[in-house]
Amino acid sequence: MTPFTLGIDYGTNSVRAVVVNCLTGEEIGTGVVNYPSGHQGILLDEQDPNLARQSPKDYLYGLERSVRDALEDAQKFDGFSADQVAGIGVDTTGSSPLPVDAKNRALGTLDQWEDNLNAQSWLWKDHTSHREATEITELAAEHRPEFIAKCGNTYSSEWWWSKILHCRRIDSAVSDAAHSWVELCDYIPSVLAGITDPSKIVRGVCAAGHKALYSEDWDGLPDKEFLAMLDPALADPRDRLYERAVDVSHSAGQLCPEWAAKLGLPEGIEIAVGEFDVHYGAIGCGVEEGTLVKVIGTSTCDCGVVSLEKDVPDIPGICGIVKGAILPGFYGIEAGQSAVGDLFKWWVEKACEGNEEDHRRLTEEVANQAPGASGLLALDWNNGNRTILVDQRLTGLLVGQTLHTTQAEIYRALIEATAFGARMIIERIVDYGVPIDRIVCAGGIAEKNAMLMQIYADVTGREMRVSGSSQTCALGAAVGASVNAGVHSDFASAQKAMTFLKDVVYTPNPESHAVYNQIFELYREVHDAFGGVKDQVDLGSLMKQLLLIKEAARS
Amino acid sequence: MTPFTLGIDYGTNSVRAVVVNCLTGEEIGTGVVNYPSGHQGILLDEQDPNLARQSPKDYLYGLERSVRDALEDAQKFDGFSADQVAGIGVDTTGSSPLPVDAKNRALGTLDQWEDNLNAQSWLWKDHTSHREATEITELAAEHRPEFIAKCGNTYSSEWWWSKILHCRRIDSAVSDAAHSWVELCDYIPSVLAGITDPSKIVRGVCAAGHKALYSEDWDGLPDKEFLAMLDPALADPRDRLYERAVDVSHSAGQLCPEWAAKLGLPEGIEIAVGEFDVHYGAIGCGVEEGTLVKVIGTSTCDCGVVSLEKDVPDIPGICGIVKGAILPGFYGIEAGQSAVGDLFKWWVEKACEGNEEDHRRLTEEVANQAPGASGLLALDWNNGNRTILVDQRLTGLLVGQTLHTTQAEIYRALIEATAFGARMIIERIVDYGVPIDRIVCAGGIAEKNAMLMQIYADVTGREMRVSGSSQTCALGAAVGASVNAGVHSDFASAQKAMTFLKDVVYTPNPESHAVYNQIFELYREVHDAFGGVKDQVDLGSLMKQLLLIKEAARS
Repeated sequence: MTPFTLGIDYGTNSVRAVVVNCLTGEEIGTGVVNYPSGHQGILLDEQDPNLARQSPKDYLYGLERSVRDALEDAQKFDGFSADQVAGIGVDTTGSSPLPVDAKNRALGTLDQWEDNLNAQSWLWKDHTSHREATEITELAAEHRPEFIAKCGNTYSSEWWWSKILHCRRIDSAVSDAAHSWVELCDYIPSVLAGITDPSKIVRGVCAAGHKALYSEDWDGLPDKEFLAMLDPALADPRDRLYERAVDVSHSAGQLCPEWAAKLGLPEGIEIAVGEFDVHYGAIGCGVEEGTLVKVIGTSTCDCGVVSLEKDVPDIPGICGIVKGAILPGFYGIEAGQSAVGDLFKWWVEKACEGNEEDHRRLTEEVANQAPGASGLLALDWNNGNRTILVDQRLTGLLVGQTLHTTQAEIYRALIEATAFGARMIIERIVDYGVPIDRIVCAGGIAEKNAMLMQIYADVTGREMRVSGSSQTCALGAAVGASVNAGVHSDFASAQKAMTFLKDVVYTPNPESHAVYNQIFELYREVHDAFGGVKDQVDLGSLMKQLLLIKEAARS
Repeated sequence: MTPFTLGIDYGTNSVRAVVVNCLTGEEIGTGVVNYPSGHQGILLDEQDPNLARQSPKDYLYGLERSVRDALEDAQKFDGFSADQVAGIGVDTTGSSPLPVDAKNRALGTLDQWEDNLNAQSWLWKDHTSHREATEITELAAEHRPEFIAKCGNTYSSEWWWSKILHCRRIDSAVSDAAHSWVELCDYIPSVLAGITDPSKIVRGVCAAGHKALYSEDWDGLPDKEFLAMLDPALADPRDRLYERAVDVSHSAGQLCPEWAAKLGLPEGIEIAVGEFDVHYGAIGCGVEEGTLVKVIGTSTCDCGVVSLEKDVPDIPGICGIVKGAILPGFYGIEAGQSAVGDLFKWWVEKACEGNEEDHRRLTEEVANQAPGASGLLALDWNNGNRTILVDQRLTGLLVGQTLHTTQAEIYRALIEATAFGARMIIERIVDYGVPIDRIVCAGGIAEKNAMLMQIYADVTGREMRVSGSSQTCALGAAVGASVNAGVHSDFASAQKAMTFLKDVVYTPNPESHAVYNQIFELYREVHDAFGGVKDQVDLGSLMKQLLLIKEAARS
């Protein structure tokens, strides 16, 4: 009997459940549910553009309905029965912590707290805690520099402690009612496992290590003394959080009778430990040592792994290097670019006041342009620079425009800017001794935009491969479930059986690569000048160099 | 009997004749004629985007018709008769030289040469001679550095000798047939005066000094030895050009019977020496010592005057300081910005693919934005930098954009960029001891765009006044004619009687000025870095400084 697992992927606006054949990786059933509350599933505050919350009720509603839809969809697969589902894996956005009561009930699901925004899930892109992030950064810099050494010496407003501290500051009622806080990627497995005591929740090291300053190098979470310096009221709740976080070789529990009935699945099947979406996504792309996975969407997230048996150095500017964060037995390395698809969207829809249709038109126009022919150079920093400068307070830059520069030329320059940013990350990782032999891309842009993928190949001088699945995050969660359920003995064999690549390989064009090498040197100069890497730079001939490249490209 | 004069203004696409009351400056009759040939009056070559020529036939056709139309239009003024026209002044684009035969007939008006583009007028914006410009620059740098010392050490492809040399190189038939060459602003007066011997043409020092390397500091035009080094065939024609050029206190001749009949004007009335459009425009704006005139259009031209009795220093980066070029008895100072209206047009119509209607919409949106609130900073170099860097091989730059930056914010940033560029010019002139007490603006943008004028006041910290006439160039030519005809005894009294300002004065808002002072310091840093003024700069905090200004402006 063919074994199947379920991968459940909690995105920003919807939840997606996928039934996967563990022998082939085939996705035989899918269910997608948009969160019903708020604006596209996000609870907003008109007074505060930084606020972004989600209703835990939506999560539970979406869980039941997406799984049921996926199972029903899978019926079309000859001979499938829900009894064949051996396990469940869950990935979510993050850091998206939510407060729970002593019975592990999300406060937002309780009538009493239903209308209180602070009692809901604090979505990853909630930035209300920016002051607290600064406080944590400054306090750590003074007293615990090791805490932030691996995240570019900057703790983010998007992360766990900033949010918990901010809630403490602005809403003591919610803060007092929160027996514990749970990352969404740990909460959903705990619900499925029927856990009613927060101290029994199995916490994943992916969220803990990347967002909650958890490390085996010190005593797990930050010590009480440090927390008390931030706020005396933070030290006490630490006891009700967790001591230990584990990788995805561990079980988060077994499917409880209540949820088995709700979902129409066998009781007692295994629930794998949860991870953030891109981490399970990397697994779904077949990440292994030497592979860099690029999930290219509104932003880009890069993931790689290095065996725990090797020394992995601190890589300056690489935000997260966490033991076991992606695959068991490996350090997980995470990097990223803060705006990729968002940058193109900004240009077309905001700056030019166009619409989605214009992307198609511009993509066609751009494909006819030769590298360097626009004379343009852009920085990809409209949303700051996550890697390698780790600085949100950087902005965009465009140079080289004349009175003849077209909309399509700027569109292409912004695509090239993200490719240069990608190359900076690749070079930084390789420069610190972590080899990259293969690049696998995933996400809507990687799947659909051949022009962009070719530019990435030409700029980086590397072949670009594309994940075979359009649902790599859910697929990766299903891979995790398959190992956890014992269908496969380890992740390597599970990935071999269940993940695959598309046939297309984008191969660098040597002439284009040579031109881009010239422009990349100029990109690096501007990057270092405005990024504060170098405090004395000479940009006096840069515009002329761009003109020379342009003239050569057009002649 | 009220005296009147005629001002005739040869623009790039049309010629305009205006009948002006010499006692009041009132413009009582106007005639405008579009040049009938080519594309909007310009003869183009599909194979060569650098080529821009005009038909001398169009000039003569436009002369007759525009003057007749203006005179007819003036009939509506009670008691006007063409007999009361005491003189004619002419301004034109430049450097726009054209070849004439030994009878002072423009080759382009002769059947034999009608279809030869090289036999026509070489319009100011013809750039076919860029190689010759480089040759002249290099030869002068080696052998006659004084020739180019006052024009930023760069001789332009738009100027007289480049064009004549290029014609020699590519079309010896035309070059041999050219008994002499004449600037358009000297040619039209010579036609009106019935001059049939090119050696008798009165040459204005405005064109000679600014474009033909003419100076009293050496023997007028460049010496034969220098010209022979460029091309042996250039030395000989020099004898058939001119020895002396004069200012606009001189007469260019008297209206000949033939043209008196054609135009319906009295024979023998005075023709003033011609000048370039913006120079007569400066006169029409009431330029005097201490006044900076800004003619703001697709590009901006700045004019000022300093008494010949004073020492006027070389001002680095100011392209032209020429004795008598604008007003008799004064040094004429000319500076400029290569793209102003063109820059806004580029943004809206090229980059954003919008239309003219969008300018109105954006202008309204921009008016609601606070200085600094966009966080943007732009350079105004999409068409190079004429003053103070004198470098065509510079390009545009925009920095500070986020994912929220709007089309209108960039529109405003580009307006601000031109204001910062204007301030650089003002500061450069003042820094070298030439005082500026008053700024008078002219041109369509100055007249119509109150938002832009306010930004100029706020950025420069100076009041901005606006010329009362919409036809300042033609008005200035009419002023010249009035002095030449003896209606007024000198330019100062003529300007006092005939030129005037609008009632509106744009006064700097102190708070806005303070914000712009901060941004201007950053503009200067970027200007100096990319303009090659400084070869070691620190731009590492620039984006953060813009963000701080932005946050302060929004709070």
